[in-house]
Parts: sequence; C-alpha cells; structure tokens
Amino acid sequence: MSEALGIDFGGTSVKMGRISSAGRIEASWSFDTARADTPERWISAVAEGIAKLGWNASAWPAGFRGIGVGAPGFVDYARGHIYSLANVAGWEGVNLAERMEQRFGVPVRVDNDANAMAAGECAFGAGCTYRHAVFITLGTGVGGALWLDGRLYRGAHSMAGEIGHMCIDRWGPTSPEGRGGLELYVGNRPFVQRAREVLCGGRASRLRDPADPEAAALTPRAIAEAARSGDALAVELFEDLADALAVALASVTYLLQPEAFIVGGGVAQAGDVLFKPLRLRLKERLSPHFLERLEIRPALLGAEAGIIGAASLVMTAS
Amino acid sequence: MSEALGIDFGGTSVKMGRISSAGRIEASWSFDTARADTPERWISAVAEGIAKLGWNASAWPAGFRGIGVGAPGFVDYARGHIYSLANVAGWEGVNLAERMEQRFGVPVRVDNDANAMAAGECAFGAGCTYRHAVFITLGTGVGGALWLDGRLYRGAHSMAGEIGHMCIDRWGPTSPEGRGGLELYVGNRPFVQRAREVLCGGRASRLRDPADPEAAALTPRAIAEAARSGDALAVELFEDLADALAVALASVTYLLQPEAFIVGGGVAQAGDVLFKPLRLRLKERLSPHFLERLEIRPALLGAEAGIIGAASLVMTAS
Repeated sequence: MSEALGIDFGGTSVKMGRISSAGRIEASWSFDTARADTPERWISAVAEGIAKLGWNASAWPAGFRGIGVGAPGFVDYARGHIYSLANVAGWEGVNLAERMEQRFGVPVRVDNDANAMAAGECAFGAGCTYRHAVFITLGTGVGGALWLDGRLYRGAHSMAGEIGHMCIDRWGPTSPEGRGGLELYVGNRPFVQRAREVLCGGRASRLRDPADPEAAALTPRAIAEAARSGDALAVELFEDLADALAVALASVTYLLQPEAFIVGGGVAQAGDVLFKPLRLRLKERLSPHFLERLEIRPALLGAEAGIIGAASLVMTAS
Repeated sequence: MSEALGIDFGGTSVKMGRISSAGRIEASWSFDTARADTPERWISAVAEGIAKLGWNASAWPAGFRGIGVGAPGFVDYARGHIYSLANVAGWEGVNLAERMEQRFGVPVRVDNDANAMAAGECAFGAGCTYRHAVFITLGTGVGGALWLDGRLYRGAHSMAGEIGHMCIDRWGPTSPEGRGGLELYVGNRPFVQRAREVLCGGRASRLRDPADPEAAALTPRAIAEAARSGDALAVELFEDLADALAVALASVTYLLQPEAFIVGGGVAQAGDVLFKPLRLRLKERLSPHFLERLEIRPALLGAEAGIIGAASLVMTAS
C-alpha cells in the first residue's frame, strides 16, 4: 500500500495521480494551470486535488511515500528549488519542495518534467533495460533527461538535459536561451504555428475547416490524425519536425553515444508518422558506426508518463 | 616512486615518457610511426624505447604502475582494443592492451588520444578541480572528452565525446558524419581555407604576402599572431571561429551542464584572440542560469598532454 502522489505540472494543465507501488494510476485529477497563477494558489489547488483523490492531507495513510512533482523548467533537484519555468510566469526562485513539505507534512521531490518522465520510464517503462539512454519529451516545451551509467545524470547544478535549447541552426531565431534552439522548431506552439502558416498560404488539406479556413482547430493531435490518414500537408509537417529533431539527436549521439533514445510526450503519440521519418533523417545525419548501435523507441507510459514519473521520484529516490 | 610509462601514439611519431606520480616527465624518447609499420614492429620499437628510458622490461621497479597508450582512432577502452586508427594503416582490430601485457608483464591501458589528454588534464592540469568538465582539442580534427561525475564517460561503445561532429547548422555542408558538423568550421583546414578565401576577395591584411598575394603561408599560428598584433581580418576570422565554437559549447552546456570547458590543441594556443570572443559569443547563446555557472579555461599541459595523459590512464585507472 505504499502509494505516492505524482504531479505533472504542465504549461496548460496540472495533472495529479494516485500511484500504486507497481506504477499504476489508481485515481487522477487535474486543474488548469492558468487558474492557479501564483505558487500560493497552485499549492491550494493541489490541496483541493489531494482531497478529490480521496486522501486527507492532515492524516496520510501509513506507508504513503510522499509527493513528486515534475515541473517544466529549470529545477535544482537537490533543493527542490524552481529557478524559473519555461511557459508559466510567476515561478522565479520558488523553493517548491520546502513549501509543500511545510504545507503537507510529507517528503516532496521536485524535478524537471523530463527527469521525472525518465525516472518513470526507467522504473516502470521503456528505459529499464539500458545502461545509457536519453529521454526526450515533446510537448509545449522539449525536455530531455540523461540516464548515464545506470542513473540520472543531472550536471553541475541539476540543470543538465535541456535538449530543447540545443542549437540546431546557428542562424536561427533568437530566444532568451540563445539562438536556433530545437524547441523553437518542434515545440507544440511553433509546430501548430507552422501548420497555420502553410494553411494560410492556401495549401489544400483536411486540416482546413471549410466553414472558417482561418480558424482551424489545429493541435498536434489533429495534425497527427491527418498525417495518419495520408494528408500530404500534415505528412510534410511531421517530416520537417522529424528532421529538426534528427539534427539534435545526431548531435547528442556524437556527444554521448547512448544505446537508445526514448521519445515521449504528446507529439510522440503520433507514432509512425513521426518515428518513420525520424529514423530516415537520422540515417542522413549519423555515421554508420554510430547509427548501427542506436535504438529509437517511443516511451511506454504514454500520456501517463508525467504523473507516474513524478510519483517515481519519491518511490525510487536517488 | 610510482612511475608509469605514457605513450602518445601519433600519426607522425610515437612519443614515450617516463612520468612521475606528480605528472612530471622524467625522461622521454620517440620513434617515427612510419618505421614501425605493423603492431609487432611497433611493440618492438616500444621495447627499445623502454630500455632507452632506463627501465628493464624483465625487472620493472617496485611500484611501477604500468603502461598507458593514447591512440588516434576508435578504441574500446574496456578491452584495450583498437578498431581502427584515423591516419595509420594496419591497425584494424588489434587488441593492443592484451599483446603488450603479454610482452611486458605489466598492466596496460589503451584509450583514444582525446580521452588520454582529458585524463591527464584532470589528473595534473586544468581539469583537476572539477567534478564535471568537458575537454576539447582544436587541431586538424576537433576532439572531445567528457569528465562526468569525476570520471571519463565513454558512452555505449567507447565512442562518446565526438564534439567535432555535432551539428551547428542544420543547412550546413554535408560530410560522412552528417551535415554542418563543428569540425567543418573550426578544424585547421577549413579555418585556413576561410582565411584564404577572404584574402582572395582582396581584403587588406598583414597575412597577405606583398610579393605573392595568392600564396600567403597561412597557418592557424600565423593568423593568431596577426590577430594579436591587431590585424582586423585575422581578428574577424577568430571571431567567426569563436562563434561557431560557441554554438557547440552552448549546446553541450544545455545538455550536460559541466562546470568547465578545458580547451586545448594548436588553435587554443592563440589565447585571448580566441577566448575573449568565445566568452562573448557564449553570453549571446546561453541563458544566464547556465552562463554564470560555467568556466572556460585553456588546457595547461600543452604539447606534453599526450604522454602525461597516456600515463595517467594507468595512474588513475577507473
């Protein structure tokens, strides 16, 4: 009965899950990130969620392991401190672990979302057989985590793994993190934005809403569905995304030579329309010495990776 | 008294050194690589060198640590096995460590030259105070080595650290290793080639030979001297090189968050004309969170890094 609470703090919604010691979700709850726009309100919304999940935060059950949070930004795992979040304002310099431990009286671990997902995949998913693997989550942002020599590698100040900021184009657009970062090409927003631009250019596609061509309900999921049904424009959009991703994965491979990449997050649910061109583009961008020794695998925990991974931070604390 | 023998196996010459436990060269010897053109002859030439260095290979002194070899190519460190060497024929699939151990009866470690140099800088040079550092050598090629969690990280098949093949421009020139690799911009040949192109364009510079403007004796060292004396064109060439290097270092920083980069090799001897613009460009390409926690340092062991580094492979065996 050693359950844990996993919290997947996303740019759009905050998902909470009651996770069993076998990594199963026994109950879940979520609230909109926009509705909890300060750390105080966020912690209160979590308190509400704890009750909805059937727990009493003043009387946790015996064997309860604690709370794990995966947050989308720069986090010092050792201190549970958030330096800043990528797509959520108002979180500069917040020691979330300390504040939550004071409020809820149980151990709290905070890590960036990609590390949380990697911890989950290693504990319960696709990562458990590798000694060296690199995890990528494709979402609003692009996160990464490094499993090197059989454990999470966090770098000098817990901020390693920021694959989303690796430069794929020296002359690319600027951002607070530099120039030409991967995330500027494959994050949900630029991906949808690119689709919108091409549609506005007049290309035929089932993504177009005949009633209102400017206002198509574009989401990565809708584009993936269109691509799977053979829509040429949607297929091209995924090929372009796969190429951008291949540039970064090739660089990571030359640097770290992992045995595998485990790719998760919303966009990765697209399946073959992403993974097929990704493997092709990697072939163009890697020497056979490296390509032959590399696997590309989808994450296994899927949409649930976030909360299971967050919970695994307190289940397999290291 | 715990000495070791360090062997720097280069494409032109093989340098051997008697190295003290403090990392000092107490005696050295070398032979031409071309004169020892099979593994058998190479090992015999090493045996001769051992005697020249004042040792008796049938009666090693007490406390002798063994022999370390840095070789220019793909090496499986764990087995001491050379897959192939970059500029030396006849070394495909040679288990050098095993053969030398049989011949000399002492522990032998074989690694690629970039890893050997990194091990030396960590044991006795600019790297010794860091837990996480990344080493780069700027020469004909661009090599790298990763010192993570206090030891050399070698990747799944001993081939990690190939910073020179990391992509800095998605649309850049193609090579057998992919497209837009760092080495295609900052290796000695493209660097000199770029200088030649700009000179042919007619720019004034002290690099130009007034007697024969097409045939300037261009070397990275000559360009560095011109830059130090304020030659505008040479300064620009180093700024461009620094920018290309900054792109890759920023990506490595986002991925690994090392405490420091240790930059060695011929071009790094240029000093401030390289390191000053490098630090400036990194500022443009890194978020302050990462920049503030990062040091950029020149390598300390210079031309001796090869044999000291090789010896350190058996002194700090991991």
